Amino acid sequence: MQKAKGVLVILSGPSGSGKDTVISELKKRNVDIRQSISATTRPPREGEKDGVDYYFIDVPTFEQKIREGYFLEYVRYGSNYYGTPREAVEKLVNDGISVLLKIEVEGAGNIRNVFPDVVSVFLIPPSLDVLAKRLRGRGTETEESFCSRFAIASHELCRASEYDYVVINDDLDDCVKEVCSILDAEKFRYSCMKPIVDEILKQTTTE
Amino acid sequence: MQKAKGVLVILSGPSGSGKDTVISELKKRNVDIRQSISATTRPPREGEKDGVDYYFIDVPTFEQKIREGYFLEYVRYGSNYYGTPREAVEKLVNDGISVLLKIEVEGAGNIRNVFPDVVSVFLIPPSLDVLAKRLRGRGTETEESFCSRFAIASHELCRASEYDYVVINDDLDDCVKEVCSILDAEKFRYSCMKPIVDEILKQTTTE
Repeated sequence: MQKAKGVLVILSGPSGSGKDTVISELKKRNVDIRQSISATTRPPREGEKDGVDYYFIDVPTFEQKIREGYFLEYVRYGSNYYGTPREAVEKLVNDGISVLLKIEVEGAGNIRNVFPDVVSVFLIPPSLDVLAKRLRGRGTETEESFCSRFAIASHELCRASEYDYVVINDDLDDCVKEVCSILDAEKFRYSCMKPIVDEILKQTTTE
Repeated sequence: MQKAKGVLVILSGPSGSGKDTVISELKKRNVDIRQSISATTRPPREGEKDGVDYYFIDVPTFEQKIREGYFLEYVRYGSNYYGTPREAVEKLVNDGISVLLKIEVEGAGNIRNVFPDVVSVFLIPPSLDVLAKRLRGRGTETEESFCSRFAIASHELCRASEYDYVVINDDLDDCVKEVCSILDAEKFRYSCMKPIVDEILKQTTTE
């Protein structure tokens, strides 16, 4: 019997929408979805293993791989690159395993271009006041840096229409259940079910 | 607080895929979705009430309404018309209530044209043998009529790619849960969440 394909889901949303909290909660609940292993040019920290925590590669190799289209998406923070290898994600999805990627709002559009079957979920705070409180809650910022981050985050909220789904992160439990319902449903998309449908259509019957 | 819009879901699939069984099971489980009231030109049976069981209208009125674009879709069985009034469905959806329509495979395409946000679910049997058994199980048919219905149903299976979702009706309980996960998830589509997102964006903050 053929298996359904997995789903590639990107979870995005402005800073302060709670992407990391939601992902860590999905892990706690043993939700049947894999996070892909990223590649990075930053040196391994103590205890980190190549191919487990990250694929550690050097800058020239990373830049060569960018040119070769090796990454579904990549970003540069300071002097370090971080990227999502496309082949690893494609293999998991073809093997019927769903993959979750946390993506900054800027990077989400690129993935849609190279992986049209991606399912995109936009996480938003219930109000701008809550967004402001969450950003302040991090506590380590000057007023100036807060204002700049708040302005970027509020502006990013306008990008909701570019996503398939919008989930409000007010009550964390509700929010995680809603994300789970999306992960459950998307397994039955035609694009995932196609191998099974094709197998049924190829059957001969005893009739 | 603005409410999310409801979803219009069409459940379709070949004869023998189990559409009626699934819908009756959704009702038993009090799933939060409404079936819309159809219009028909057939006379009311005993106990049937206009505006409750059907909207009963005469043939010239029905044909006039077809020309006016009053129906999301309609079919003619023998000398009787059956149709889904568009306005009633639109009102429910705008009021945040999700609506389920059972549609024959032929009619599904029309709805997509006039209601692009429709969510379409295609129900299929787990194999052609099971499909044949189910059609035979109805028991009231000649061999010739069985062959013709089996041919039409197998042919309709090829239309799966026109639908958003494909659900296999093998174990009824699994199948109903899968349809429910789709109904749950689709409430978070951007098109449904738009009123809420717009309200958050219109806020002024105390910041």
